[in-house]
Amino acid sequence: MSPHPLEEILHPQSIAVVGASGSGGRGGNFLASLLELGFKGKIYPVNPKYSEIAGLKAYPGVREIPGSIDYVISTVPAREVPNMLEECSQKGVKAVHLYTARFSETGRQEAIELEQEILKQARKVGIRLIGPNCMGVYYPRQGISFREDLPKESGTAALASQSGNVAGDICHSASSRGVYFSKAISYGNAIDLNESDYLDYFAQDPETKIILMYVEGVKDGPRFFRSLRQATSVKPVIVIKGGQGESGARATASHTASLAGSMRIWETAVAQAGAVSAGTLEELVDLAVAFYFLSPIRGRRVGVAGGAGGASVLAADRCEEAGLDVIPLPTEFREELKNKGVPIWDWISNPADMSIREDDSLSIGDMLQMMDRNQNFDLLIAIMRGHFHRGQQETSVETYLDEYKLKECNQKPFLAVMTDGSAGSTDEDNQTQKLMYQVKRKLIEASIPFYPTIGRAASAAAKLIDYYQKKVQQ
Amino acid sequence: MSPHPLEEILHPQSIAVVGASGSGGRGGNFLASLLELGFKGKIYPVNPKYSEIAGLKAYPGVREIPGSIDYVISTVPAREVPNMLEECSQKGVKAVHLYTARFSETGRQEAIELEQEILKQARKVGIRLIGPNCMGVYYPRQGISFREDLPKESGTAALASQSGNVAGDICHSASSRGVYFSKAISYGNAIDLNESDYLDYFAQDPETKIILMYVEGVKDGPRFFRSLRQATSVKPVIVIKGGQGESGARATASHTASLAGSMRIWETAVAQAGAVSAGTLEELVDLAVAFYFLSPIRGRRVGVAGGAGGASVLAADRCEEAGLDVIPLPTEFREELKNKGVPIWDWISNPADMSIREDDSLSIGDMLQMMDRNQNFDLLIAIMRGHFHRGQQETSVETYLDEYKLKECNQKPFLAVMTDGSAGSTDEDNQTQKLMYQVKRKLIEASIPFYPTIGRAASAAAKLIDYYQKKVQQ
Repeated sequence: MSPHPLEEILHPQSIAVVGASGSGGRGGNFLASLLELGFKGKIYPVNPKYSEIAGLKAYPGVREIPGSIDYVISTVPAREVPNMLEECSQKGVKAVHLYTARFSETGRQEAIELEQEILKQARKVGIRLIGPNCMGVYYPRQGISFREDLPKESGTAALASQSGNVAGDICHSASSRGVYFSKAISYGNAIDLNESDYLDYFAQDPETKIILMYVEGVKDGPRFFRSLRQATSVKPVIVIKGGQGESGARATASHTASLAGSMRIWETAVAQAGAVSAGTLEELVDLAVAFYFLSPIRGRRVGVAGGAGGASVLAADRCEEAGLDVIPLPTEFREELKNKGVPIWDWISNPADMSIREDDSLSIGDMLQMMDRNQNFDLLIAIMRGHFHRGQQETSVETYLDEYKLKECNQKPFLAVMTDGSAGSTDEDNQTQKLMYQVKRKLIEASIPFYPTIGRAASAAAKLIDYYQKKVQQ
Repeated sequence: MSPHPLEEILHPQSIAVVGASGSGGRGGNFLASLLELGFKGKIYPVNPKYSEIAGLKAYPGVREIPGSIDYVISTVPAREVPNMLEECSQKGVKAVHLYTARFSETGRQEAIELEQEILKQARKVGIRLIGPNCMGVYYPRQGISFREDLPKESGTAALASQSGNVAGDICHSASSRGVYFSKAISYGNAIDLNESDYLDYFAQDPETKIILMYVEGVKDGPRFFRSLRQATSVKPVIVIKGGQGESGARATASHTASLAGSMRIWETAVAQAGAVSAGTLEELVDLAVAFYFLSPIRGRRVGVAGGAGGASVLAADRCEEAGLDVIPLPTEFREELKNKGVPIWDWISNPADMSIREDDSLSIGDMLQMMDRNQNFDLLIAIMRGHFHRGQQETSVETYLDEYKLKECNQKPFLAVMTDGSAGSTDEDNQTQKLMYQVKRKLIEASIPFYPTIGRAASAAAKLIDYYQKKVQQ
């Protein structure tokens, strides 16, 4: 089997940024991103107005670049693309990322025709196109990025997103919860390489373990669902569809010139292909976090601890609503509590509300550890404190985490709920935020997914269970 | 009409904290909260082990207090309550808040009987009881609080919550979005004063404009729904039910000894009474924010601006899903854009995606202002930036807000979406968080409700519209 064409495209020895400028602008940002993420190959800024940009020699055109060029990022206006492609073809460029927009998404006849011409021209000279109207590639291991502020850390999640802003948002919010990326590609109007190409590539990519997608419309439905089925047979694929309703479909037309299609048909086809559907961007990230960190969970029996009073009641409600089974404490579990001399052995329940303890004979961590070792539970959710009384903000991250005995709970899939109680108004809040940030880093190091609400944790866990149960049945 | 009994109870001239201690503990916390919030009346710590606590003279028992006492906060163990009540009755105490727990919620016969005895005793001597097993009263205008860290600011939202932790969470998260409280009462097992009493009181309370409730189970169903209907006839009531499913109902039994009852019957009765149901705690706060700040919205036609690319597509989806009508731009609106010389007049849509502007002829603020003045829109949602590129964090709050022309948009209900893009890891993130905090303060000052996601903003707005449309029909 020959390697997927994207493998070569994504490993360029040299990149030219056409339209780069020293005074910011999008071309300047692309250049700064390559420098910031530390691209190891040659970088050529191209702009006839400059002789040097960001300390690099600038060239008036692609043609004038002395060495060979593998990959070009284009920020020039649409009408200048044919000339630039012509120069690229003379230089043996393999792929061009067209950030350049204002093609078919404008709905204007001449722009649609120009887009078609460009595709014909590229096919003729054997140049592959990413885009147009997109942010292109983020590949931290290679030092390629479309934004300076995306993490330098690499991971095993891949993302194909029709929208560049959505791609940036996903990369940011997923990485703040420990999900780092092998590659993320924003692909826009997708006139040449399209969603199925990216999906096929990620499916066979050894650097990628889970695949995320934001799709507004697909170029070739039957091919996409074949690719989706193939990809899901080897790794989890989580998909969100943009343009679900009437107004959203109108918006996709002017965003990436996509035909949104019927949502019901879409949902059915995605489910039949074995992929996981996310209803919102937040849910996509919640699911990414679950699939990234958790092994398959074989059952729905959840043990919950840490919520006080009404928080435990609501935790039970949200878990049940999500389809988890909040089982009562098993008899032998109560016996164990009794034997340990815990006075509340007959009172404590699941979710375990530790707020009215008579003594210190049982901590939240003890409870979690007992649940972790009891065969009646399939997964655990710890509700962690996000709020501190005055003075408690001095708590060290170690003391905080000891409360939950995270290290001792190593038998069962474990999810954490961590709300940020603070709005950042006072020094005390800042103190809390700093501690919470440290806690999050520790959770990530321990491969523990965390969620801002119990409902979101429960829902992500339930969808993960659904996914693996369906897999077993196949 | 005689004043509601709670009016006198909540305006005590003197408060005794029985079980107060200088070394923290719950009694110490209640004392510290009264001092911190600045209770103007007399405060008497009661504890035979101390002669002075927190700079105040301490008394061995209620009986030994020299002056008269209106209100007592009890943190003594359950078995000591009858004696304490006897002393209270001798001193003419009008109301006792029993933080004291381990009564019927333990499921133990002797505890249930003790609870009943206490109720009988209190009735006999004419003392009203708040609780037992609850955090009691937060009344910032009077300097009464059950937690030191609740805001000193007063507002016009009232809360009755069966759970003290839920009450604290709601007060914190609502106030971080500008919703301050007239009174919040955590009422626990509610053996004397119950949910209907608090609801009746808030309904006639001139300091209260909206009422929030967290209910696990009601003592007297028919009375509660009569009270609910009466309250909703004068002000909005937003209710969340704890113990919705099987496991949640089990949890309510051990939390506040409540019978949770059938969720379907509950939902129907709440809707028939004209109250607003919240499905989650987050939604309760989202709705509180909407009802607190917004006037009635008469229609569903929403104008959305500020989201870039896919964010606009997803904004359309979430608005439509919530039941808002994301109308296309009206013809005269496009004409106006054309006459203003905006090159993208035929391309821009609703949601207005300003990310591919050719020039500066139209800003997000211009767009919002035009929507604000156009009669075809009933409400506006602005998607605000929560993320900044390197260097942009220096933006001042004024510059940031000018982008959205908030001051000029004064005709229509206006909601903001503000995500916190940052996890607080770096100085730049801290910079962003500080700016975001300032922005939030400004939004609150301008009475603009803000939401972390477009979906939550749209859903809160849609429920508010439902509410007022139903009102008109009645």
